[in-house]
Amino acid sequence: MELIDQLKSEYSEISYLQNAAALMVWDLRTYIPPKGAENRAEALGYVSTLAFKKAVSDEFGALLSQLNERATQEGLTDDEKAMVRVATKAYKRARSIPPELHHRFSVLTSKSERVWERARKENSFSSLEPYLEEIVDLSREMAELYGYEENPYDALLEGYEEGMTARKLRKVIEPLKSELIPFVKKILDKGTHPDTSILQGMFSKRAQEKLSRRALKFIGYDFDAGRLDETVHPFTIGIGVNDVRVTTKYVIEEFTPSLFGSIHEGGHAIYEQGLPISLKDTPIYGACSLGIHESQSRMMENIVGRSKEFLSFFYPQIQKAFPSNFRSVSLGDFYRAVNNVKPSLIRIEADEVTYNFHIMVRFELEEALMKGDLKVSELPGAWNAKMREYLGIEPESNRDGVLQDIHWPSGMIGYFPSYMLGNLYAAQIYAKARQDIPNLEKRIEKGDVLALVDWLRKNIHAVGRKHEPERLLKVATGKELDSSYFLKYVIDKYSEIYFI
Amino acid sequence: MELIDQLKSEYSEISYLQNAAALMVWDLRTYIPPKGAENRAEALGYVSTLAFKKAVSDEFGALLSQLNERATQEGLTDDEKAMVRVATKAYKRARSIPPELHHRFSVLTSKSERVWERARKENSFSSLEPYLEEIVDLSREMAELYGYEENPYDALLEGYEEGMTARKLRKVIEPLKSELIPFVKKILDKGTHPDTSILQGMFSKRAQEKLSRRALKFIGYDFDAGRLDETVHPFTIGIGVNDVRVTTKYVIEEFTPSLFGSIHEGGHAIYEQGLPISLKDTPIYGACSLGIHESQSRMMENIVGRSKEFLSFFYPQIQKAFPSNFRSVSLGDFYRAVNNVKPSLIRIEADEVTYNFHIMVRFELEEALMKGDLKVSELPGAWNAKMREYLGIEPESNRDGVLQDIHWPSGMIGYFPSYMLGNLYAAQIYAKARQDIPNLEKRIEKGDVLALVDWLRKNIHAVGRKHEPERLLKVATGKELDSSYFLKYVIDKYSEIYFI
Repeated sequence: MELIDQLKSEYSEISYLQNAAALMVWDLRTYIPPKGAENRAEALGYVSTLAFKKAVSDEFGALLSQLNERATQEGLTDDEKAMVRVATKAYKRARSIPPELHHRFSVLTSKSERVWERARKENSFSSLEPYLEEIVDLSREMAELYGYEENPYDALLEGYEEGMTARKLRKVIEPLKSELIPFVKKILDKGTHPDTSILQGMFSKRAQEKLSRRALKFIGYDFDAGRLDETVHPFTIGIGVNDVRVTTKYVIEEFTPSLFGSIHEGGHAIYEQGLPISLKDTPIYGACSLGIHESQSRMMENIVGRSKEFLSFFYPQIQKAFPSNFRSVSLGDFYRAVNNVKPSLIRIEADEVTYNFHIMVRFELEEALMKGDLKVSELPGAWNAKMREYLGIEPESNRDGVLQDIHWPSGMIGYFPSYMLGNLYAAQIYAKARQDIPNLEKRIEKGDVLALVDWLRKNIHAVGRKHEPERLLKVATGKELDSSYFLKYVIDKYSEIYFI
Repeated sequence: MELIDQLKSEYSEISYLQNAAALMVWDLRTYIPPKGAENRAEALGYVSTLAFKKAVSDEFGALLSQLNERATQEGLTDDEKAMVRVATKAYKRARSIPPELHHRFSVLTSKSERVWERARKENSFSSLEPYLEEIVDLSREMAELYGYEENPYDALLEGYEEGMTARKLRKVIEPLKSELIPFVKKILDKGTHPDTSILQGMFSKRAQEKLSRRALKFIGYDFDAGRLDETVHPFTIGIGVNDVRVTTKYVIEEFTPSLFGSIHEGGHAIYEQGLPISLKDTPIYGACSLGIHESQSRMMENIVGRSKEFLSFFYPQIQKAFPSNFRSVSLGDFYRAVNNVKPSLIRIEADEVTYNFHIMVRFELEEALMKGDLKVSELPGAWNAKMREYLGIEPESNRDGVLQDIHWPSGMIGYFPSYMLGNLYAAQIYAKARQDIPNLEKRIEKGDVLALVDWLRKNIHAVGRKHEPERLLKVATGKELDSSYFLKYVIDKYSEIYFI
């Protein structure tokens, strides 16, 4: 067999195991009977490890070495070279951590997640502290093993967003800070605030589900290659080619979380439904990066879903679904209510203007931890100070502060920036789509989101992992990452909404 | 590690893969989006094969050899000996077929299943004929490789019902034939026939589902360790410890198929929910045999579910679920209608008196094929003749005759007898339970099926695969397999129903 065919064959086996594991995860979070969860966790652990072991085996490494030889490389197509590049990078990264350390970290973080759940409930940072300390220590050890040029933090960031560095992040963060801190102040001081009480009421689960399904169809989600189910913490999961499932959560008192949540997950799902099927079961059949993934969900949820254009088409359907609630609420009032800006303590409740500040807080703290400039014991104080600086508010308890996210207890230092990058990518990509698609806003107003989806399919989704995120952005938009697109987008939109 | 612990560890890995495969099957038949089925079939094939390969690997064989040495055996408990016995038997059986033949058979039967679907639709036996011929040829080849004492058919039977032979089957079939052929004739000629038109109507899916759930709870199915979902061809599947799922199908015009279908699947599921958890992930954590499995579903569906006692408790709930249909229908009329006897062409529609004849037809034909006494081309004629002989009716087309079942096109020669054995085991086991449990009928009449379930748990379910079916039956009932229990049960019950 040709070497490249060997790679494909190995990789299709890895994919099948990953497919099985993904289904086991989906089922665990949706339909599993309660008593079945314990055995499922064991079985899932086994199947996931099996997939991982195949991808880091000596044999696989030997195959990759051969594929990286110049003579072999010369006979490969561009796609095949990308396959080798991606697989080799993942292999080297995984192999740079000794199995013993890998195991120690995984035992530690699964314990620490359980401790966190309790610590948050009991508002006790001190009970989590020793775990976080060990997580930081091991993360620093791993950063040394992964290697980096300038900043140990970069070694972790690389695991979530290839090619990203703290230096590059700081460059895009600076203008956000200097423009948005005064902008939010202006909104709060001088803006005319929407009435959000109109969004409260009683909304049957059935009607919410129907509406979410309609919105998902409208934004191009293919129900013949996916499903919508209910869960506690909504997620999207690719279970295999043509099987990408979204989940949502229904709250009876408010339907906007399920609607915009579904659209958000739908954005993720459309990305995966649009991956290049011809490359299925290869290392480059997948999302480019977490940040690019998030750009697709954020674009659909915020730039499209919460736009005047989308709502002018879709709001009548909302009124029809909940006539007694919205019969006498105007489109304008509804539009302004779902775009309310309010500095909040909790990241996942944040609006699109203030969201990035939550990420800056976390990024700056985790980077300082990694560089040894901050001790874990100093985290709560540093957290509160940064919240005060960026958002003007401070949590009264750690539960609403440093204890709110599972990421650090899960050992995912370096993950947070991908949320912010998602926002920035989304605005930059959307700006280019708008240039390329004549009358995009007018189309959306008429209910045609598919013109945008087609553009995304071609320029983002169909690329899979052929490019690194930096290159993908450059090829798709013609520009380097630039926060001015996002700034222009939010300042224009919210100046109008707040009459400032 | 001790050898026996090695076996357990190997086997738990096999179980985890089987768990993954079972979930993939369940999802494929319930919730998978249509476009996802193709990739799922590939992934499922890979995961199942992986589990199979582990269980037939040289290393596993070497481990079993060591475990079978006398010195090792002496240190084992009875359960551990049973584990070694079951694993060794399965290993030897699988290894007696060369991988090449195994592969050829699996390719052939998956093709043949597709051909059968079409052949049945088009009523064209001739298009299936060459496939069946090859299946019979390969099955005969495999029988020689498996080995047998007297009859090549026994080698196949062994794969579904350990220790069963054609000779033993014939011994239990003889009295069934001699008693039941005249009994059915008497019913048809002299019996007072129930009015089954009362079962027809319009029954909402929602109400049917509610009723099925209630019946399942009532017979002891644990919804915290299982689920009820909808599918096209109902089945029960164990996805892991404490996760045994049932499925059903709702027909709007009639609710009894979903009700009794759910109770049937519930019988299977309660068996698996009652397997000995302390033996989880070992070779003896599983059902004893297909026949014993079927005995549990048949007992719940027919002996319990269609009994006067069960219905005197449950019929009021049926009336409540469908008041306009059953308000003025008496319990007696309902009881007689759901126990209607009518020779039918289609096995899966047969009542409990005539069902076994369908199996005899198939058993005698497949045995003759295996011995070379019958050619595939002669099947349709032979089928019709036997139907005439045992049931007094003959299909007008092969679609309602020899083409009705998927088993032969799937290569499952030797499977059918387990259905009949299920009926016989059920009657014999129930007779013993009735002796052991004071006032069993009275209890059921009061809604207490759990006394029976407890007895089954202890005497059947908790045994797992420690014994072969023959021994299980002997230990549980004190007797060898004997068709007189079944005969007494049906003749008593139906003499009363038909006033003969």
